[in-house]
Amino acid sequence: MSEQNKKTVILLLSCKDQKGLVFNITNFIYKIGGNIIDLDEHVDPVESMFFVRIAFDLESQLFSENELNAQFENLGKQFNANWEIHLEEKMQKVAIFVSKYDHCLQEIFWRQTLNEFNINIELVISNHEDLNRLCEQNNVLFYSFEITKENKLEAEQQQLDLLKQFKIDTVVLARYMQILSPQFVREYPNKIINIHHSFLPAFIGGNPYKQAFNRGVKIIGATSHYVTNELDEGPIIEQDIVRISHNDSLKDLIRKGRDLERFVLARAILLHSQYRILTYGKKTIVF
Amino acid sequence: MSEQNKKTVILLLSCKDQKGLVFNITNFIYKIGGNIIDLDEHVDPVESMFFVRIAFDLESQLFSENELNAQFENLGKQFNANWEIHLEEKMQKVAIFVSKYDHCLQEIFWRQTLNEFNINIELVISNHEDLNRLCEQNNVLFYSFEITKENKLEAEQQQLDLLKQFKIDTVVLARYMQILSPQFVREYPNKIINIHHSFLPAFIGGNPYKQAFNRGVKIIGATSHYVTNELDEGPIIEQDIVRISHNDSLKDLIRKGRDLERFVLARAILLHSQYRILTYGKKTIVF
Amino acid sequence: MSEQNKKTVILLLSCKDQKGLVFNITNFIYKIGGNIIDLDEHVDPVESMFFVRIAFDLESQLFSENELNAQFENLGKQFNANWEIHLEEKMQKVAIFVSKYDHCLQEIFWRQTLNEFNINIELVISNHEDLNRLCEQNNVLFYSFEITKENKLEAEQQQLDLLKQFKIDTVVLARYMQILSPQFVREYPNKIINIHHSFLPAFIGGNPYKQAFNRGVKIIGATSHYVTNELDEGPIIEQDIVRISHNDSLKDLIRKGRDLERFVLARAILLHSQYRILTYGKKTIVF
Amino acid sequence: MSEQNKKTVILLLSCKDQKGLVFNITNFIYKIGGNIIDLDEHVDPVESMFFVRIAFDLESQLFSENELNAQFENLGKQFNANWEIHLEEKMQKVAIFVSKYDHCLQEIFWRQTLNEFNINIELVISNHEDLNRLCEQNNVLFYSFEITKENKLEAEQQQLDLLKQFKIDTVVLARYMQILSPQFVREYPNKIINIHHSFLPAFIGGNPYKQAFNRGVKIIGATSHYVTNELDEGPIIEQDIVRISHNDSLKDLIRKGRDLERFVLARAILLHSQYRILTYGKKTIVF
Repeated sequence: MSEQNKKTVILLLSCKDQKGLVFNITNFIYKIGGNIIDLDEHVDPVESMFFVRIAFDLESQLFSENELNAQFENLGKQFNANWEIHLEEKMQKVAIFVSKYDHCLQEIFWRQTLNEFNINIELVISNHEDLNRLCEQNNVLFYSFEITKENKLEAEQQQLDLLKQFKIDTVVLARYMQILSPQFVREYPNKIINIHHSFLPAFIGGNPYKQAFNRGVKIIGATSHYVTNELDEGPIIEQDIVRISHNDSLKDLIRKGRDLERFVLARAILLHSQYRILTYGKKTIVF
Repeated sequence: MSEQNKKTVILLLSCKDQKGLVFNITNFIYKIGGNIIDLDEHVDPVESMFFVRIAFDLESQLFSENELNAQFENLGKQFNANWEIHLEEKMQKVAIFVSKYDHCLQEIFWRQTLNEFNINIELVISNHEDLNRLCEQNNVLFYSFEITKENKLEAEQQQLDLLKQFKIDTVVLARYMQILSPQFVREYPNKIINIHHSFLPAFIGGNPYKQAFNRGVKIIGATSHYVTNELDEGPIIEQDIVRISHNDSLKDLIRKGRDLERFVLARAILLHSQYRILTYGKKTIVF
Repeated sequence: MSEQNKKTVILLLSCKDQKGLVFNITNFIYKIGGNIIDLDEHVDPVESMFFVRIAFDLESQLFSENELNAQFENLGKQFNANWEIHLEEKMQKVAIFVSKYDHCLQEIFWRQTLNEFNINIELVISNHEDLNRLCEQNNVLFYSFEITKENKLEAEQQQLDLLKQFKIDTVVLARYMQILSPQFVREYPNKIINIHHSFLPAFIGGNPYKQAFNRGVKIIGATSHYVTNELDEGPIIEQDIVRISHNDSLKDLIRKGRDLERFVLARAILLHSQYRILTYGKKTIVF
Repeated sequence: MSEQNKKTVILLLSCKDQKGLVFNITNFIYKIGGNIIDLDEHVDPVESMFFVRIAFDLESQLFSENELNAQFENLGKQFNANWEIHLEEKMQKVAIFVSKYDHCLQEIFWRQTLNEFNINIELVISNHEDLNRLCEQNNVLFYSFEITKENKLEAEQQQLDLLKQFKIDTVVLARYMQILSPQFVREYPNKIINIHHSFLPAFIGGNPYKQAFNRGVKIIGATSHYVTNELDEGPIIEQDIVRISHNDSLKDLIRKGRDLERFVLARAILLHSQYRILTYGKKTIVF
């Protein structure tokens, strides 16, 4: 295949472990004309579960996305598997939710200018006006919703309508200071990425830097995870840490933590945008 | 002073912050003939507290330990300070408590042969027989106590008697699988060093590796802290972490964690043996 | 002293080690009315050198900067010391040199909006036009010089004239792709901060990521150092690393390295802006 | 297959990349009755090379090691591949070379008691007597050779005879302070594991801690690599680092480095003992 005439397809598949899975799946890809360029598999021996991510090239004119889905339908049925396929060329449509802090949004915008992610940022949604100008400078649509206890569900419905309208695939909470309702979360299972400013499960909930400061820990962390309806309990995608000491004030923790948050969230978005993450219960397999 | 004729004294002092503290303390040391070789100070602006560690050399024949204590008594009173002085040449007497795991004890013994710590290991106390041979090989006294719910307080009393008999300064819990009673802890405030096999305050209590495995974290840790009567809530001395992935089984977590435990505990013992730790509430200042 | 009526002074001093230094210096500060808020000292036993950084508060109306310098003149002479004093309120004037890469400049601008550094960015100087717009967006003056072999010394002289005109204290080379001539470096000893995109002294010179990729290392790094006339041999301020694997292409190394470069340079600027660095031969003491 | 009646086989294979490799190899394994439990593959797009490691289970009575080799002979020829197969149950026979330092040997012995490695330690060879007793305590044969300039090649020949006699698969240089001659190295290509006490390629050659101390680096490292005939230039298996500061004396660097050396070497031995390493030119692929 020449570079111009090929497209890259990514298969994510999980099912009960059984003999011949890799052979059968690679055989299937071989038969439809695919050339495997990357294969990662994992067997969880405790749960006897099989997980695989395969990237393969296809002649461009072979199979539309729908035709590919139809093809893999049978394979999936054969093994009673959860599976999805994605064309690498078709970028994910992303909405970013923010409040007042700019550091995570800045970081995402800047990396996007360098094409680090395989995404299109369609819009930014906020419950405050503060980051409007930053979005303007980056030519990204900005929608703000003043959210109160009373109008919360209604505002969320309007946000969901926007997400539908823009055909959003993935929602990124870039220090969004609102807890999403179960109705919202249900619409985007394992497609809402959050950054929590602590080393989960330590310091769940509000003011984790304050909690860390008061506990006198020697290391602080940040955690990116998919949002579920249990607060800060969703499958963890990525974590990182930084050392602190008695010399660090609460302000220093916040400053050092900002850097962690930006990086950990960026890495999670990168992995998600490359379809490298499979979830299984409360856990992720990150290929 | 020539090398042979001097001794090194370490002063640890904390008090309410006030003007002229460093000047007055260093002036005092100057007047008694001391030559400062190391000085670390910290002011906690939130609590307005002052902490200092000063190492200074003195002519050997000047002042016995008792005389030095008498000298600093006045200085301490002047600032209403908590303070202690130690002669570096006088090694701390240490008792190590173990159960069945050998890795932390091995590590301590091995580092001791290299004189990494400034301690004498006087005895090992265990609630099992397993590590008797390892102690024999290292020529360290080994005392075992079968501990049941019924005899626990009595056994602890016998242990305390041993500690008194050997004039123990510091107790190291090197994966000792018993919770010490308040009566015991009270006798050695901020002198009992524990290693907990998690990144506290995550995974307090039993089976932290199992908890971490089930939660699907991407990083595990170990924490060394002084023992207080709140389980795993004592002032943290040192922490460290290691990355894990979906490829790591529970057994791998335990294996990787073992290495963390040994190193974090060893670093805590080193800092403690050099009198580098001041505690304040639930926190430590580590100079 | 009330918050409004005080100013913070930072003293950096180094000299041959001798008895009574801390006492004499703190005594001196006490006598001129200073209240020490932070003191770090270090004795290099090999070279028998003494280094100290003291931050102290003074009543605002006491002593101008010139008067303070006159006061410390005597102290410095007494110990034959190198010393300097700085008023914290008087921010350093900084010039940033860039070429085409924006990541380090972006990072510095963004941190400056959060007031992380204690500096004023007076101007940006470049040998290319590319980052003009970024400077405009951040309201920073931008001067570009097309540099050829023929005009290099002349262009440098013009740059030096600009630095004089703006009374620049510190020069930051934020991935500036030109080697400064000895004439230039001589004007700003230990005041030119460079970021080198390798873990020095590994991979000195050009294309360090390519060198690292070809060598097959498992870790790459970045190094911030003061510029001297030996290429990549100046005193190291800060270093950091990131893990790589066989999965990482040269492009991945460059991507991961970019993040290191930004952070390591930012940390070096922060330390420098807080007057936390003393140099001694090829080494730094970082308090 | 029941646990008792199966054996695990590990295939390492590399060849020019071509279509259908994974399918053909997994098909082959499927046909001989294998059940894949772990598969890692990597394509180097620059060199267009394909690398794979597959672990698969077989009924115990199926195929002896020789029969398996005969089977894979054809597959290897088909793709003009380098390949090797190993039975997991058949532990590698290892010889450890040491001089006077005990820390790496201690670490290996201790991990061996916990069965961390999949190896048998057959003998220890040294150019000094110092570690004889440690080997005795661990019931490992110890052979010492006084090595001079004059007898070096002869001594090496005697060492090689010992390695032949004990059918040694892998040689571990655990701080062995002699440079092996090309004749020796030729006998064990990519089967001699060394630990170098620096972050290669920084500080090649002798006294790397001294070099690091004099250069004033802020991070030191250790590197485990296969030995080739270019000093410290063999394929790197694993590296790690630790932070240092101006407070660390040369002695502290050596102390901190000791811990790095033990861990980095232990990780390299683990990876090698699990057949997780493929080499390609100066590089390793570590699965």
